[in-house]
Amino acid sequence: MSIPLSIELNDKEFRILDQQKLPHVVEYLTLETLEDVYDAIVTLKVRGAPAIGITAAYGLAKAAERYETNILEEFHLQLNKDFLYLANSRPTAVNLVWALERLRSSVENAVTVQEAKVLLLEEAVNIHQEDEASCRNIGEYALSLLEDQTKVMTICNAGSIATAKYGTALAPFHLGSERGKKFEVFACETRPVFQGSRLTVWELQQSGVDVTLITDGMAAHTIGAKGIEAIIVGADRIAENGDTANKIGTLNLALLAKAFNIPFYVAAPSSTFDLTIKSGKEIPIEERPAEEITHIAGKQVAPLDTKVFNPAFDVTPGEYITAIITEKGIIYPEYTKNIPSLIN
Amino acid sequence: MSIPLSIELNDKEFRILDQQKLPHVVEYLTLETLEDVYDAIVTLKVRGAPAIGITAAYGLAKAAERYETNILEEFHLQLNKDFLYLANSRPTAVNLVWALERLRSSVENAVTVQEAKVLLLEEAVNIHQEDEASCRNIGEYALSLLEDQTKVMTICNAGSIATAKYGTALAPFHLGSERGKKFEVFACETRPVFQGSRLTVWELQQSGVDVTLITDGMAAHTIGAKGIEAIIVGADRIAENGDTANKIGTLNLALLAKAFNIPFYVAAPSSTFDLTIKSGKEIPIEERPAEEITHIAGKQVAPLDTKVFNPAFDVTPGEYITAIITEKGIIYPEYTKNIPSLIN
Repeated sequence: MSIPLSIELNDKEFRILDQQKLPHVVEYLTLETLEDVYDAIVTLKVRGAPAIGITAAYGLAKAAERYETNILEEFHLQLNKDFLYLANSRPTAVNLVWALERLRSSVENAVTVQEAKVLLLEEAVNIHQEDEASCRNIGEYALSLLEDQTKVMTICNAGSIATAKYGTALAPFHLGSERGKKFEVFACETRPVFQGSRLTVWELQQSGVDVTLITDGMAAHTIGAKGIEAIIVGADRIAENGDTANKIGTLNLALLAKAFNIPFYVAAPSSTFDLTIKSGKEIPIEERPAEEITHIAGKQVAPLDTKVFNPAFDVTPGEYITAIITEKGIIYPEYTKNIPSLIN
Repeated sequence: MSIPLSIELNDKEFRILDQQKLPHVVEYLTLETLEDVYDAIVTLKVRGAPAIGITAAYGLAKAAERYETNILEEFHLQLNKDFLYLANSRPTAVNLVWALERLRSSVENAVTVQEAKVLLLEEAVNIHQEDEASCRNIGEYALSLLEDQTKVMTICNAGSIATAKYGTALAPFHLGSERGKKFEVFACETRPVFQGSRLTVWELQQSGVDVTLITDGMAAHTIGAKGIEAIIVGADRIAENGDTANKIGTLNLALLAKAFNIPFYVAAPSSTFDLTIKSGKEIPIEERPAEEITHIAGKQVAPLDTKVFNPAFDVTPGEYITAIITEKGIIYPEYTKNIPSLIN
């Protein structure tokens, strides 16, 4: 039993877990060229905002190691070119650009190309290690909130394989497993892309966590029938008032938590907060192709030309969120006051 | 454009629409033996409480036609045996046993085997025709409730193909379509068996109704984003206090309706009421195989040996139901008083 990792760097290789092949095949891919890294991000072999950022960072650092010039100006020109190439792999992923920017800043004052190459890799390692530490902190805070609870529901995969290690919403289960705390986790399958069944169930099984799979529509009945005591989810973006954009289906769970009078927790690193937006109303909701719903595993389930509404995210109003768990601490309402004071 | 039918009886054959093959293939199956009927019910080729009841009734009547005895006592023994066999095909569907009981009662005073055989088939035809009339009434009452509303959400398929014709929850849409009323129906796909995407979308398209498909987890977001004005669902069994067993996912919608302050209607014939049970706590919930969730279209999506909770139904407490629409009229709370007075 061990917590699965999606990104590995050793002396020889930089490898990622191919998440497109889970759960059937557990296969690590060695990313050699910058094109390999770009492809891994675009084709969702690596997913989860933090994991994408770390992958891009290593990708850029390893590419720069191979630059043949000794002239610093030429080095920077090539670095900028590769920066832009990777930054465009998933234009909406905030952590991707954030990680690449950190690498570029780290070599601003480098005196030699050799020094710059060393600094880039060091910074990539820093980003990787900081994310692991951040997730571990989130896990510790979440464990403290879930001290008296064992039956917990989650959706999507805010897990170890979406981050450096531990994950966000799944971090308390991994840490609990290490310490002999027996959680019973109920994972919503997370239609349309099945991150729950494909990824969360697999990830928690690897870690020895007792996990039960349900469909998203079973959530209400399961909360009552199985005595679910809390719900914990990740986040894609959090506004100043606590309104939280996360995988579609999250708002359902938040409203059910209220109906059943159980706590609803959001777990996310502080980089997920966007204090430039005052409320969730300002968060645009991406709509994805109809085929994600009309076709399953390549097979058509709905009639041809079915009209589909396929939003990728929903926004849970802060008023339904019991607490937001970050690496810096736990934030309780009133969010408009408490989020800026912890995050800024 | 026409309303699709799931059960057909002509001089030669008793046929059902194979709902497992929808929406790709529209194919009618001839049911010859009692085993054919049992299999059609168990494997969900025929589904929907009223359609199951009608199918079981025809199945029992057609089986009895082939009994070779002329001794009435032997006839009744065989009938009871076949009654029990069919009655055990699906535990939660109350219409199944209700229809079979009606057939058995219809021959209590038969004097000859030949008379009994005729009476059984007549009673099956009665059940079939009464259900069509009943669904039409339900549709009329539902239309009157939805007079000022056009955007309505539903789950599963409480449709024409789940009944003799028109359906229950879908009856107002079919009737509306005939009269030029433009509903915008949002159909939840209804995991795990996809009755929404496979059946409801197909059925409403056949009838010319504007229907949009969403996943079950999108319900909350869709209610807000699309301005859903009401939710209407069918029922498998209704207790004296209004507690309603229906397809898993129904309770989610009822709780969302309350959160969004929109009406939540249950549409069902009076045969769906089971006044021998005081509350939903007494309704057994069938659990179905894990493979319905771990495998999709024959392809495995979750890891091997995934622990699954797969309840087929949930129970919505009467307190969350705005009104129950029956062929005899609309029942409002307080249900414990008003249900027995309309149904008995």
